[in-house]
Amino acid sequence: MTGTLDVALIGQRFMGRAHSNAWRQVAPFFAPPLHPFLHTIAGRDPKDLESFAKQWGWTHWTTRWQDLAEDPEIDLVDIGTPNDVHKEQAIAMLEAGKHVACEKPLAGTLDDARAMRDAAKKARRKSKTFVWFNYRRCPAIGFARKLVQQGRLGKILHVRAKYLQSWGFADTPLLWRFEKKRAGSGAHGDLNAHSIDLARFLTGEEIVSVEGAIAQTFYKERALLGDAAQLGGKSKKTKKAQAMGKSTVDDALLFLARFAGGAVASFEATRCAHGHENRNTIELNGEKGSVRFDFEDMNVLELFDAEVDAATRGWRRIMCTTADAHPYAGNWWPSAHVIGYEHGFVNMAADILRVLGGQEPELPLPDFADAYEVQRVLEAAQIAAKQGGRIPLREVK
Amino acid sequence: MTGTLDVALIGQRFMGRAHSNAWRQVAPFFAPPLHPFLHTIAGRDPKDLESFAKQWGWTHWTTRWQDLAEDPEIDLVDIGTPNDVHKEQAIAMLEAGKHVACEKPLAGTLDDARAMRDAAKKARRKSKTFVWFNYRRCPAIGFARKLVQQGRLGKILHVRAKYLQSWGFADTPLLWRFEKKRAGSGAHGDLNAHSIDLARFLTGEEIVSVEGAIAQTFYKERALLGDAAQLGGKSKKTKKAQAMGKSTVDDALLFLARFAGGAVASFEATRCAHGHENRNTIELNGEKGSVRFDFEDMNVLELFDAEVDAATRGWRRIMCTTADAHPYAGNWWPSAHVIGYEHGFVNMAADILRVLGGQEPELPLPDFADAYEVQRVLEAAQIAAKQGGRIPLREVK
Amino acid sequence: MTGTLDVALIGQRFMGRAHSNAWRQVAPFFAPPLHPFLHTIAGRDPKDLESFAKQWGWTHWTTRWQDLAEDPEIDLVDIGTPNDVHKEQAIAMLEAGKHVACEKPLAGTLDDARAMRDAAKKARRKSKTFVWFNYRRCPAIGFARKLVQQGRLGKILHVRAKYLQSWGFADTPLLWRFEKKRAGSGAHGDLNAHSIDLARFLTGEEIVSVEGAIAQTFYKERALLGDAAQLGGKSKKTKKAQAMGKSTVDDALLFLARFAGGAVASFEATRCAHGHENRNTIELNGEKGSVRFDFEDMNVLELFDAEVDAATRGWRRIMCTTADAHPYAGNWWPSAHVIGYEHGFVNMAADILRVLGGQEPELPLPDFADAYEVQRVLEAAQIAAKQGGRIPLREVK
Amino acid sequence: MTGTLDVALIGQRFMGRAHSNAWRQVAPFFAPPLHPFLHTIAGRDPKDLESFAKQWGWTHWTTRWQDLAEDPEIDLVDIGTPNDVHKEQAIAMLEAGKHVACEKPLAGTLDDARAMRDAAKKARRKSKTFVWFNYRRCPAIGFARKLVQQGRLGKILHVRAKYLQSWGFADTPLLWRFEKKRAGSGAHGDLNAHSIDLARFLTGEEIVSVEGAIAQTFYKERALLGDAAQLGGKSKKTKKAQAMGKSTVDDALLFLARFAGGAVASFEATRCAHGHENRNTIELNGEKGSVRFDFEDMNVLELFDAEVDAATRGWRRIMCTTADAHPYAGNWWPSAHVIGYEHGFVNMAADILRVLGGQEPELPLPDFADAYEVQRVLEAAQIAAKQGGRIPLREVK
Repeated sequence: MTGTLDVALIGQRFMGRAHSNAWRQVAPFFAPPLHPFLHTIAGRDPKDLESFAKQWGWTHWTTRWQDLAEDPEIDLVDIGTPNDVHKEQAIAMLEAGKHVACEKPLAGTLDDARAMRDAAKKARRKSKTFVWFNYRRCPAIGFARKLVQQGRLGKILHVRAKYLQSWGFADTPLLWRFEKKRAGSGAHGDLNAHSIDLARFLTGEEIVSVEGAIAQTFYKERALLGDAAQLGGKSKKTKKAQAMGKSTVDDALLFLARFAGGAVASFEATRCAHGHENRNTIELNGEKGSVRFDFEDMNVLELFDAEVDAATRGWRRIMCTTADAHPYAGNWWPSAHVIGYEHGFVNMAADILRVLGGQEPELPLPDFADAYEVQRVLEAAQIAAKQGGRIPLREVK
Repeated sequence: MTGTLDVALIGQRFMGRAHSNAWRQVAPFFAPPLHPFLHTIAGRDPKDLESFAKQWGWTHWTTRWQDLAEDPEIDLVDIGTPNDVHKEQAIAMLEAGKHVACEKPLAGTLDDARAMRDAAKKARRKSKTFVWFNYRRCPAIGFARKLVQQGRLGKILHVRAKYLQSWGFADTPLLWRFEKKRAGSGAHGDLNAHSIDLARFLTGEEIVSVEGAIAQTFYKERALLGDAAQLGGKSKKTKKAQAMGKSTVDDALLFLARFAGGAVASFEATRCAHGHENRNTIELNGEKGSVRFDFEDMNVLELFDAEVDAATRGWRRIMCTTADAHPYAGNWWPSAHVIGYEHGFVNMAADILRVLGGQEPELPLPDFADAYEVQRVLEAAQIAAKQGGRIPLREVK
Repeated sequence: MTGTLDVALIGQRFMGRAHSNAWRQVAPFFAPPLHPFLHTIAGRDPKDLESFAKQWGWTHWTTRWQDLAEDPEIDLVDIGTPNDVHKEQAIAMLEAGKHVACEKPLAGTLDDARAMRDAAKKARRKSKTFVWFNYRRCPAIGFARKLVQQGRLGKILHVRAKYLQSWGFADTPLLWRFEKKRAGSGAHGDLNAHSIDLARFLTGEEIVSVEGAIAQTFYKERALLGDAAQLGGKSKKTKKAQAMGKSTVDDALLFLARFAGGAVASFEATRCAHGHENRNTIELNGEKGSVRFDFEDMNVLELFDAEVDAATRGWRRIMCTTADAHPYAGNWWPSAHVIGYEHGFVNMAADILRVLGGQEPELPLPDFADAYEVQRVLEAAQIAAKQGGRIPLREVK
Repeated sequence: MTGTLDVALIGQRFMGRAHSNAWRQVAPFFAPPLHPFLHTIAGRDPKDLESFAKQWGWTHWTTRWQDLAEDPEIDLVDIGTPNDVHKEQAIAMLEAGKHVACEKPLAGTLDDARAMRDAAKKARRKSKTFVWFNYRRCPAIGFARKLVQQGRLGKILHVRAKYLQSWGFADTPLLWRFEKKRAGSGAHGDLNAHSIDLARFLTGEEIVSVEGAIAQTFYKERALLGDAAQLGGKSKKTKKAQAMGKSTVDDALLFLARFAGGAVASFEATRCAHGHENRNTIELNGEKGSVRFDFEDMNVLELFDAEVDAATRGWRRIMCTTADAHPYAGNWWPSAHVIGYEHGFVNMAADILRVLGGQEPELPLPDFADAYEVQRVLEAAQIAAKQGGRIPLREVK
């Protein structure tokens, strides 16, 4: 590595695009200490792979992700695949001495996550690990964390996290995301994983117990994907004949929890809440003030500062787009020239390159050990939903 | 009763004012079938009682609430006292053949509530009972209920109710609201009672189980009221010497629940959330759409109609101030001339007078039996918070 | 006057109700130095007059407003009639030694307004005058004024006032409000009058010139009122046969102006803006901060304090419902228990009673001289709209 | 051109970055018919030019913009320089047979703009021209235009455009943007140019008259740039000694106008409105509904559909992020994964490449003739501000 980092990526779908863009965009906006070179894209779909590679600027492409481990030129492998293959891919890359940046959640199961954490620990002298909890990199979130750290909110009493989407009603077919074997869980692992990470990141505290949970599968059967094309069809008969398969994951999962510092918390993840397409929200109430964030209005952090006099206090809508004042803002555009979804990924790529280049990141990066803590909370909530009652986190390992 | 209803009221504080105003204002705005006559106010504080009576237009006053039972002129007794005396007062009035309108929650304990429900049942040929769940009477809430009943939201999948306030931090002294003996519970009975009533009212469904709960007392000791005057003092010494007493109620109570129709729900009540002074919010997500309400913006109902085409759908901010379109709106002012907090009480007084005058209410009124169901849910949540685990409602009687 | 003020009111429609309510409600909530006695209501419609009087608590009623002048018991006459009769009624009452509280705008024409101002000046030893610019009495507006006076916004550079409604489209018949002879003007006198008053009240400055204006009548003909009943009919034939009359007022009037202190301003009033039912908005931008107000969210003042550090500044949503912190708030309910439209009238009645009882009002009250200044600006804008060009206010007398 | 378009860019500051990014990003997200090749960057500052070129991927660089005309490889020249040099650069490139994409406003003066329009007309067989009115390319704006074209709003009665910023207070030094010679005008040409373009684009109508205007220079003197470094200094003495220069442009310009179809309009541009950093807003009120847009919440279009029943109508907050439903949305991320400021430029680059590649653009592109119409309105408003009175557009040529 002499000023360049050779990156390989596994995955050519949604996350494949988001990560490719991040590696493309980071250099001009951040001038990082290492310049990423888009070395190889690995994907299972040979038909589209070459065009995807050319479109996004990857120099090589392969349908065998294993090739990446064998290529000595590659420095970092970025994993953007479904949850059930994270373990195999990540461990192989760590054993080959690569840095690994893995999509969230760390894995579909706690066993997989533990194995990954252990492999990362073993490889730690040669390899660094990262997990794409991208919402940490929204300037508004990073700024909220700073306010908490500065004591501006005082002791935190309440955490309220809801991640609501609306794409999972009856007419959505049986995608891999509805199969427990592949996804591990449903809305829970997909969405609550983000919320748990944000809650820990913002408070700087661990969750010590889950105090109750509901896991709900509203739609227990869904159209098999082969027949899904017929879903748009007009014929009632066709619909009746449709082959159905079993959805084996939660459509929604709600849980209550306690934090080490004494805060009480509620979490909710669902794919069945109309009016919420990607509504990742979190609110903290402390003894001196409150903050709240809504990703659908991602450039804004709302702050209620209770130290202000009674006459002029109120929720303050802060545009987190000011250079020198808000994390990452100086790398983009002038104040109030808002940024969007993909910028979180670019900001994270910048911090990865800073860390690998020997600099400090703008904000702390989650590694496999960190993401394993998230996975333990996911597990505790699932146990609570199944058996009822209180689950102390120390019992979940 | 020939066109007039003689009303007596017990209570001369916050609810005393709100109820007095309701009985004063209902006639000019609603021209109800019975005209209320403000007969007698009963209160314990002899010093202010006469001036209170004159200020609000009460013809007589007494410090013995028992007098009301004995006065044959009085038709309806309105109870606006702390929770621990509801039972005694209400039952005495029912036994005296009065109609009773009682503040919420019905009682401080489930035992009291049950006794009141039974007394109401026994007295039902002569007396009607009412409970002041005033938020039902916000036009936006009444309209939301109509949308649910018309099937505009489809099957309800999610209920999300949060009632957040911010007056209960460390410097608030040991008011009666912090004494279990008098209040029964803290934020739970005060705030969750409203939320549970609204959730049942809006969905038309019963809660069938509580699935987990957290009860939290952030501040276990508070300054005794006698010393509270010193709270504003500047001397640190004085503060240290302050006599403290034990707070025996929850500052916050969160719980998860299931509804009979399959919806999953979260409830949260707290007095320690800065930025929320009287934030009574509820959201419903159905298969065809969603609604949400926030009392701090009480004239508005937000509706997301998922049946609208993908291009133009969005959260719709409906000003519920249109005569003929929204409940009670025609009795007040032209469209967008907003109403306030006390109007819910006036609207409820109007419906009480309609019912007693032989007419239909604009919206159904809660009676003691109805309020007892709310009390059972409160109880179930408290049990769940204490012992953990799932509490089926059928086990709480 | 021994602790009581005998009030008479002319007008039994919308303003009749709003003013009746104000005189009814002011005593219990404000305990003013003078207690208003609802003496006589005068109205032209004999059919409804008695029932209106009884409904609202007026002791006497008459169809001859002239009677009020002759009745020595009456202390104050409140005028809630159309603009073209304000002059005759107000002057008669002043000559009879009554105090007068008149609806806004002061008059339909500048000539009438001038005569009223002069009559008030002449009668000033015996009589006080008041004009019902009710929006001044919203707590949020009163609080904004205090912020300006304290210098919290610095020198004011911009005033932006829009008062938008939506009841004046093609299907609205030819009400008196569309007749120049009766109303004086359309949206201009009805709505811009409020905005001009608020702008002067908030800034404490006079408008020195109108710099351009547009008066627009979108619908030059409207159905005559006799035929208006047919408007709802389905038959196209009926509609064609409908008798039409000429609308002689503006549907919208926009103008630009300069303030004495150097601020530039835009005003807009319209009855043809869908989505705005009673959207009375005003924003001030000063060198140190900004405030904005929207009557459809009337309990809130938004403040942007530019003196706050760059990281945490933002628009602050202030609930102006806090006793001791916001004007009038302490007379109503606890914090965040919002108030509505009619409370502005009650607040104003309280200040009238304070002034007549020898006390200071919470906020300054507009008298005829003050309202005459508003009328001069209305006139200047109409001249500018007609002849184009700049109209210095000193030329309009 | 065989599938590739060789692009050159003049300008290495803010617009240099925004345009470089647009040409970089358009290919992977849009797969346009022509692939842009970042051929040459031209800039006056030799020190940073090479690093800028490398950072953004430009293959060549030069400090002589004239070189671009002489290079036969270059197909399109993109002009991102101050307004006073647009004419010379654009005409030179058109004469050399290049396509030209010029920043807005078209020029600093109407004379320059006319010359550019004429040159474009003359070169039209070989060259196409484009003007970077980037806000047209926000999905919300494009979608609003479609609603107007479909007749969803009915006849337009009101246009209300405000473009408010807050960087121009007393402590901002004398940048080129405050020099009339270089910028042509101040907030007017910079911000009202966008608003005029949007108003014409959305309504599909021309402005026929300006009916009044105010041009205001709040700060007539500003610190000379050489001394600007001292601005941050603490010493009062230093400040007093600061050399000052004359600001020769407007800080704010407001005007009223009429549209061909009968709508009345107000425009306002300012750099001195705290709380508004890049608040580009526009609202249209039609006979059947209204839309409004605020760039600080750029992914959202608000729609009020007055055809909806009175009970459920309200302002609808539409996230314009849905593929197939909203312009350009399908090229980016899933629904509600919001986009930011620079995406407007990428969307425009895509449409330029489509047009040059023989395809239809997603939305119409402004050319020099179109931008000249904007310039005529700018001119008319300036005349109205100077001499007062009404300026019919037909008199401004």
